[in-house]
Amino acid sequence: MNDVQQFVQHWWSHRQVLSELLQAIPEDKADFRPWEKAMSVTELAMHIASSAYKFVDSVANGRFEPGWDRPQAETLADARRILDEYTTKTRARLESLTPANLTDIVDGQAVFGFSAPGSVFLASALDHEIHHKGQLFVYARMAGAESVPFFSKR
Amino acid sequence: MNDVQQFVQHWWSHRQVLSELLQAIPEDKADFRPWEKAMSVTELAMHIASSAYKFVDSVANGRFEPGWDRPQAETLADARRILDEYTTKTRARLESLTPANLTDIVDGQAVFGFSAPGSVFLASALDHEIHHKGQLFVYARMAGAESVPFFSKR
Repeated sequence: MNDVQQFVQHWWSHRQVLSELLQAIPEDKADFRPWEKAMSVTELAMHIASSAYKFVDSVANGRFEPGWDRPQAETLADARRILDEYTTKTRARLESLTPANLTDIVDGQAVFGFSAPGSVFLASALDHEIHHKGQLFVYARMAGAESVPFFSKR
Repeated sequence: MNDVQQFVQHWWSHRQVLSELLQAIPEDKADFRPWEKAMSVTELAMHIASSAYKFVDSVANGRFEPGWDRPQAETLADARRILDEYTTKTRARLESLTPANLTDIVDGQAVFGFSAPGSVFLASALDHEIHHKGQLFVYARMAGAESVPFFSKR
């Protein structure tokens, strides 16, 4: 298994859980937020989905372009459907990467003010997803989810 | 930089933030928990600190022994002090690892029912820390922290 496949598997062990977690949140809690200025359930889910894709796509392209696609979901059903779309395209984009995409320098100047090997941005993307998914577990419990999955799936 | 040093740096980019985050939580919120059965602020911080050490120590030893050291902190001052102690010993234990500790199979049967290369358990330890630290950010905001750090530190 090469480093790209290993990364796909690692990311997948978390993305599957994100999808299950979103299933566990009650339908009427799409707009729930635990404190006043927090992202809501659907905003947080869309932020995770779109950020991961942006990172992976930028690593594939060799550079980050300014601007960020921020999908909006009105309902939890919307959020689940949009997440699925992003998951499919993120996985496909990840699987298109070559080992060289991990070692080649990706130009991140326009967005982050620095450049780094692709592997650094991919690691950040995964950390970012785990971080926010952890937050969504708290949201889910506070919103009344009775059963939530383990935080990663082997 | 070898894989061990790379892992230390990656883990450190999150551990420093955990310490800063704990500083940002108001003193009277040590027992705050966002839902009834959740871990409290101090319980969550101690869970992160002790789990990371257990994983790293077990990778260094080549096997996981049953049982888990679970420190208790009464106050946030206690929690910060105990976290610092764990951070110091976890970092030292990590820095003692050799590249072979990452590729050698670690016996996790007694705790997880499977064995895997050390690198797999280290990756899980870091994911676990990022996951729960993400949750602690929600706790901090709900507990009235006015300013919190970015989720990782370069």
